[in-house]
Amino acid sequence: MKAEIITIGDEILIGQIVDTNSAFIAKELNKIGVSVCQITSIQDEKKHILITLKEAEARADIIIITGGLGPTKDDITKHTICEYFNDTLVQNDAVLAHITELFKNSEHKILTKTNVQQALMPSKAIVLHNENGTAAGMYFNKGNKAFISLPGVPYEMEALIKDKVIPKLVSEYDTPHIYHKTVITQGVAESVLAEQISEWEDDLPEFIRLAYLPSLGIVKLRLSAIGVDKKKIEAAVANEIEGLLSQIKDVVIGFDEDSPEIAIANLLIEKKQTLAVAESCTGGIIASSITQNEGVSAFFKGAVVTYHTSSKSGILDIDQRIIQEYSVVSEAVVKAMVLSVKNKFDSDYAIATTGNAGPKKGDAAAEIGTVFIAIATPEKVVVEEFNFGKNRFKVIQRAKNKALQLLRKEILNAK
Amino acid sequence: MKAEIITIGDEILIGQIVDTNSAFIAKELNKIGVSVCQITSIQDEKKHILITLKEAEARADIIIITGGLGPTKDDITKHTICEYFNDTLVQNDAVLAHITELFKNSEHKILTKTNVQQALMPSKAIVLHNENGTAAGMYFNKGNKAFISLPGVPYEMEALIKDKVIPKLVSEYDTPHIYHKTVITQGVAESVLAEQISEWEDDLPEFIRLAYLPSLGIVKLRLSAIGVDKKKIEAAVANEIEGLLSQIKDVVIGFDEDSPEIAIANLLIEKKQTLAVAESCTGGIIASSITQNEGVSAFFKGAVVTYHTSSKSGILDIDQRIIQEYSVVSEAVVKAMVLSVKNKFDSDYAIATTGNAGPKKGDAAAEIGTVFIAIATPEKVVVEEFNFGKNRFKVIQRAKNKALQLLRKEILNAK
Repeated sequence: MKAEIITIGDEILIGQIVDTNSAFIAKELNKIGVSVCQITSIQDEKKHILITLKEAEARADIIIITGGLGPTKDDITKHTICEYFNDTLVQNDAVLAHITELFKNSEHKILTKTNVQQALMPSKAIVLHNENGTAAGMYFNKGNKAFISLPGVPYEMEALIKDKVIPKLVSEYDTPHIYHKTVITQGVAESVLAEQISEWEDDLPEFIRLAYLPSLGIVKLRLSAIGVDKKKIEAAVANEIEGLLSQIKDVVIGFDEDSPEIAIANLLIEKKQTLAVAESCTGGIIASSITQNEGVSAFFKGAVVTYHTSSKSGILDIDQRIIQEYSVVSEAVVKAMVLSVKNKFDSDYAIATTGNAGPKKGDAAAEIGTVFIAIATPEKVVVEEFNFGKNRFKVIQRAKNKALQLLRKEILNAK
Repeated sequence: MKAEIITIGDEILIGQIVDTNSAFIAKELNKIGVSVCQITSIQDEKKHILITLKEAEARADIIIITGGLGPTKDDITKHTICEYFNDTLVQNDAVLAHITELFKNSEHKILTKTNVQQALMPSKAIVLHNENGTAAGMYFNKGNKAFISLPGVPYEMEALIKDKVIPKLVSEYDTPHIYHKTVITQGVAESVLAEQISEWEDDLPEFIRLAYLPSLGIVKLRLSAIGVDKKKIEAAVANEIEGLLSQIKDVVIGFDEDSPEIAIANLLIEKKQTLAVAESCTGGIIASSITQNEGVSAFFKGAVVTYHTSSKSGILDIDQRIIQEYSVVSEAVVKAMVLSVKNKFDSDYAIATTGNAGPKKGDAAAEIGTVFIAIATPEKVVVEEFNFGKNRFKVIQRAKNKALQLLRKEILNAK
């Protein structure tokens, strides 16, 4: 079974928004054994939409379209799909009742003319009820092919995919099995890793593919297997991963959706130990990336973001003389920060960062990209100095990843 | 001039990564008057790549390909492009010298066989030097069309686009002018906004298009104009925006790349006033979204993330009895938090949040999605209670946006 995703919206083609919908849809389709062979982004333009629908129909069995279902004049997907299926719009009472209800409970209250028009649906479509918004989804059968049109607002689309589209596809089609397993490594370069596991890679069976996905200090190794026997291919992948782990266990921090944050969470929850963070140049990203995941109150006590130099002495009681003598970006200051935050939050472990993320030099003499990271454990403090380059975003992200990597190392060493 | 972007990589088609490269490239091409008519994502598969190149060549003048240039075995773009142009690979000494140099300065040091192979380049390609990585870019001329192949690693691709590709395209082609201007609104629903400006929208001249981009409390209105006379279309757009602002000035927080964070930064820097933040359920995202932007040390003092209930009394000295009497998710606690953080950081304004982002109920009895937001100004404290739904990610993001919106309102009122 092959699928294609078509995302409609000028905002994607001019680069104003990033298309995150396709990744979500592709992931969900993969889970039920449907592989996505192409993702196509096109403008809100009737002719282009019609051509793309035709091309996709020639290549794929399932065509999923997102975007262009809003209440405003630039949203033309519904009318265009109507034309493609030679259909007409009729008022759907259930959709109208839902829209009316939504507005009654919203802070806006006023049901507008354009909202009422959203209750017009193509007569041949099976309507997919959208609990989270005013634009309903549509499902069309054409021969043995399925066309599905969904709103582009991510959380509305996501709920429709999970609750309506996937169950419907599972009930209508019979598909082979696709299985992905990803091994997450941290702290080793892609090319070095590739050399290290080259023989293992060469010996992989034909039906298992390997892909390397590097990003800012993390390399993901994804094994993908395809076959008819679900248990057999999963066992084969598990077997290969066992072989892989015997060679690179040290650098593996987790699997699949794991991240450095989740690896830390798992370790600390298991050990019943706690963490606090003092951030300067990273500006709160360590705390916010940890708290993106649920259940972290079990180990995460909290953080201070001492962004302004004055707040380092004010909030963390760091001696002004240390800052004056060593400068705010220094081993002495990061060490004082980590000890102070560990003490104030009464945690077992602590992270502190101070540095210059750029693009301009700040209060300190330190080069742009210089970051000091300190880890406090129940026994000691370790400090390392890095230079993460000149790109502000990259410096902040890499500092965050490196801090979590160093923390993980210390927790494992303490075991 | 029309362009197409082709992104190559199984990881996009299985939804493991989101294609952020296309948005970046599209934005840069737009600036020089090249419009992107299609973005196509396909797998690392020779046949599919060859077909897609041919289709794109039939439709577009400029074809930009990213991905598949890495050192590992799943990266087949270079060989496939070679086949498309009936070309052969030859060693490029400048690329080899650069790769050797890169490894000398890296933490890994070891130059591997696979890295050396990255110095093999198609003989017909103009090599685009990649300062940030081992995979060089390639530029091919075919008739009056350009094919450009770039690595998929975002920051490597970005530097190549800005420093090499755009200057080369500008020197080789003559293009019409495309101009985008975006008006950012906050706190009003898309459909309400659409009704409000309906007449204005209907009166827009033919060559100006309007698009609505809603996301979590923010609606962007993008005006796009195309024409030959740069000054004329820019003036026409400016004129239309003037008319728009006369109707919706209250809800406009900025333009183009502005965000609620930047709107706050501009206001506080202008007023020479400062901000501190106390975050509970938002976990540091207010601080980290503010500090993503450069130059914020001019007004941002810092933050505390009192994630664990105990840290609210520990770090912010909040009376345990208040927490016990009113619960940790309450007006009384958020008020105490905002006053404490304002005092501790000695700031003019402060934000505090406490709530339950879900998916499980935490220490408090509050419903999932309940968030209290407090704003402290030099004169007073205002508190509002919200429910942002059941999706953890959405609750956190919407709380962040709403907090910044409330702060902006208070700063403007104080003027």
